[in-house]
Amino acid sequence: MADLDTLYAHIEEHAADYVEKLREVVAIPSVSSDATLRPKVHEMGLWLQAELERLGAETKLHYPGTHVMDGEELELPPIVLGTYGTDESKKTVLVYGHYDVQPASLSDGWTSDPFTLTELDNGRMVGRGSTDDKGPVLGWLWVVEAHQQLGIDLPVNLKFCFEGMEENGSEGLDEMIVAEADGYFANVDAVCISDNYWLGTSKPCITFGLRGVSAFALTVTGPGWDLHSGVYGGTLHEPMTDLIHLMGTLVKPNGEILIPGIMDNVADLTEEEEALYDVLDFDVSELEAAAGAQTLIHDDKKQTIMHRWRYPSLSLHGIEGAFSGQGVKTVIPAKVMGKFSIRTVPNQTPDEIAEKVKAHLEAEFEKLGSKNTMHVEALHGGKCWVGDLNHPNFKAGTRATEKVYGVTPDFTREGGSIPVTLTFQDALGKSVLLLPMGRADDGAHSINEKLDKSNYLNGIKLLATYLHELAAETDL
Amino acid sequence: MADLDTLYAHIEEHAADYVEKLREVVAIPSVSSDATLRPKVHEMGLWLQAELERLGAETKLHYPGTHVMDGEELELPPIVLGTYGTDESKKTVLVYGHYDVQPASLSDGWTSDPFTLTELDNGRMVGRGSTDDKGPVLGWLWVVEAHQQLGIDLPVNLKFCFEGMEENGSEGLDEMIVAEADGYFANVDAVCISDNYWLGTSKPCITFGLRGVSAFALTVTGPGWDLHSGVYGGTLHEPMTDLIHLMGTLVKPNGEILIPGIMDNVADLTEEEEALYDVLDFDVSELEAAAGAQTLIHDDKKQTIMHRWRYPSLSLHGIEGAFSGQGVKTVIPAKVMGKFSIRTVPNQTPDEIAEKVKAHLEAEFEKLGSKNTMHVEALHGGKCWVGDLNHPNFKAGTRATEKVYGVTPDFTREGGSIPVTLTFQDALGKSVLLLPMGRADDGAHSINEKLDKSNYLNGIKLLATYLHELAAETDL
Ligand SMILES: [Zn+2]
Ligand SMILES: [Zn+2]
Ligand SMILES: [Zn+2]
Ligand SMILES: [Zn+2]
Repeated sequence: MADLDTLYAHIEEHAADYVEKLREVVAIPSVSSDATLRPKVHEMGLWLQAELERLGAETKLHYPGTHVMDGEELELPPIVLGTYGTDESKKTVLVYGHYDVQPASLSDGWTSDPFTLTELDNGRMVGRGSTDDKGPVLGWLWVVEAHQQLGIDLPVNLKFCFEGMEENGSEGLDEMIVAEADGYFANVDAVCISDNYWLGTSKPCITFGLRGVSAFALTVTGPGWDLHSGVYGGTLHEPMTDLIHLMGTLVKPNGEILIPGIMDNVADLTEEEEALYDVLDFDVSELEAAAGAQTLIHDDKKQTIMHRWRYPSLSLHGIEGAFSGQGVKTVIPAKVMGKFSIRTVPNQTPDEIAEKVKAHLEAEFEKLGSKNTMHVEALHGGKCWVGDLNHPNFKAGTRATEKVYGVTPDFTREGGSIPVTLTFQDALGKSVLLLPMGRADDGAHSINEKLDKSNYLNGIKLLATYLHELAAETDL
Repeated sequence: MADLDTLYAHIEEHAADYVEKLREVVAIPSVSSDATLRPKVHEMGLWLQAELERLGAETKLHYPGTHVMDGEELELPPIVLGTYGTDESKKTVLVYGHYDVQPASLSDGWTSDPFTLTELDNGRMVGRGSTDDKGPVLGWLWVVEAHQQLGIDLPVNLKFCFEGMEENGSEGLDEMIVAEADGYFANVDAVCISDNYWLGTSKPCITFGLRGVSAFALTVTGPGWDLHSGVYGGTLHEPMTDLIHLMGTLVKPNGEILIPGIMDNVADLTEEEEALYDVLDFDVSELEAAAGAQTLIHDDKKQTIMHRWRYPSLSLHGIEGAFSGQGVKTVIPAKVMGKFSIRTVPNQTPDEIAEKVKAHLEAEFEKLGSKNTMHVEALHGGKCWVGDLNHPNFKAGTRATEKVYGVTPDFTREGGSIPVTLTFQDALGKSVLLLPMGRADDGAHSINEKLDKSNYLNGIKLLATYLHELAAETDL
């Protein structure tokens, strides 16, 4: 294996350059959900292409077409593809990241302009996209650059896949991956994504699991149009009353899901899994701080984490078609749609969940004795994902973390989903490793998003080391 | 009493003039809830002032000031006040109406331009404001004009009060009435409002009761900000879950209100009252047609009408702060506000209702065992109103109806509120009669609003006859 210490020293020496480049890209407000900023998303994509070309990668822009947003037809930003190295004796690693960001404005409460990278005394670099996901995306570039500058051979071939619509539904991405599975991505041996976060603020982690999500729309329809509650109140079955009763049969205030059979396929807790929770760098007070409230259901850390990662949860998101403005409007809404979703875990499947939800709601609606009509629609079902910690890809990530940070990483899951993880795994049939750069308190989608400078630099070292460790794996 | 037949014949002869004038005012789109049309509301107020002046009334414009709508500060339209006759030997009748209208546009589904009065073969005059409330307001003017043209002495003094904000909260009206109770309105003996509708389509009615309304906002607060359901789902008490459970404890799908003690003060049904329901011109199929659904709770006419008029009802209007858009957003809303209101009846009071609602919700929230916080706010409480059918004002309205239509009117209530009714009664201490001109199917706030030409003409006769009958009352 190459001299990693030389590599690490080089990275530390070039810290100022890396920060300048991050400043440059944070200044491009590539907000994918803002139609007026769509040109900036394109600009950011081209910036990345140019950098990849400068580093000697062969690049290709995949334009997925157009989509309609806020009534406007917009050109989707390009998926930036790159190939660096085609040495058949080397393994090929596909790295994914996204160059679009969440919206941000000073008026949301930022303490500095969100699109001006602002370095604080405590080492924080504040700016939209710093940690999600421009910092990690740039990290991959500096790994290549550092090897070139030091004359160290990069021990793997790289495939890059950087998209510009991650914060806005990743439109066109899945189709492209599936279409290129045997094409552009044919020789990929392993996948690595750096787009999530440590569990806490001091200990790095390797992420091996994500919950799935099954979303539903529950519609109750009655009158032909909205009615005045003065004129009709008391005379007819009101859709809102039915809907509220139905939504109340889904979940208890303590989080218990009331749908019969919903827990049937939840994987049993093994001793091996249970042991992972004990060592985690996590305190419930951090979760409370991040949520801005002391309203946790469970008192202890282990139960809290397990209900975030390995048990399903059901959230009621809202109601479409009812009055949602300020004040009060004495309306009887004619048609109301309750929106809720279930975070799913192994070994639940979207089909199974949808069936149980429908059966339950139909039975409950029957009990109401209402003359209204009810309809349940499964909106989308993303499967849960669990990676194999014993796979060489994870072993490489683990050893890389140990080398850079000197500790065994936490082995974590996430409560949310990163759909592309499963797409890569299913389409390419390869292991996908989630290898985060930032910390739990980076505030990815919040105000004052930041990336600690130490996480940035150690993150670059981590990505580099991971590639060397992976190259050294004989079982891949 | 003057020769009513001469008066009736004159009114029939001048039908074309009255229709032309209605066409003229329908063409002024005085939509009070549309900022861009506010100048048209002012124009309509000045049109009325000019007509009153032409008829010899002394007029006065009361400008209530400004209000903010859609972020714009707008001048409120004038309340047009008029005095016609100051003969101390005559009684003084105050008539109220409104000259603003609901929004309307062809794209809503109108079969003709809403601001062009369109006469159909079946006698319908279609146009926004035709029945609500420009037709009735003009009716009062033609009563005065007809007397002048015929040289018949108007048997009462009149006070006019026409507002331009009825469809948008009647801002400034109550304050003015209270302030002028012992001033401009000091000598008023009785009040008449023509701004509601027959119960059905063939039999006239006198309206003597209105339900009140008590509106509430039920707030549940948890996290400091909206959270991602993937990250937090299962770990903390979600405000939406609590709120949905609480809203579910308010009312059953069959309309039964579940708040303890809520029915305690509902007036007993007397034989005298019960007899009124038997003769009503009403069929549940009309209500079904108007609601666009066959979802009535009660099968028979009497129960349906009683639950519309004389029993309270509770409607759940919606939720503020939750996701209300299309599709799904996997959010855990941090603070959600359920909006609901109770239509109240004699002898319920807003204070009593508010107390019972709060006590109930506090008890139910306690049962949830949630760490979130709950707050119940009584938004506004309009009292219910019941007039005395034996009062000379009502007797005069009844006899007038019998003379014009040849039938005893239905004695009806309304499920909704007309707040100014109670303001006049309380501020002036005088009887208020609701004497409708139009029919149940006029579609006041809907597309293709219409006034039947026969209702317009008979309505003018009715208002005229009412004034004569009232003048003949010795007990007033
Ligand atoms: Zn991201
Ligand atoms: Zn993100
Ligand atoms: Zn009206
Ligand atoms: Zn109206």
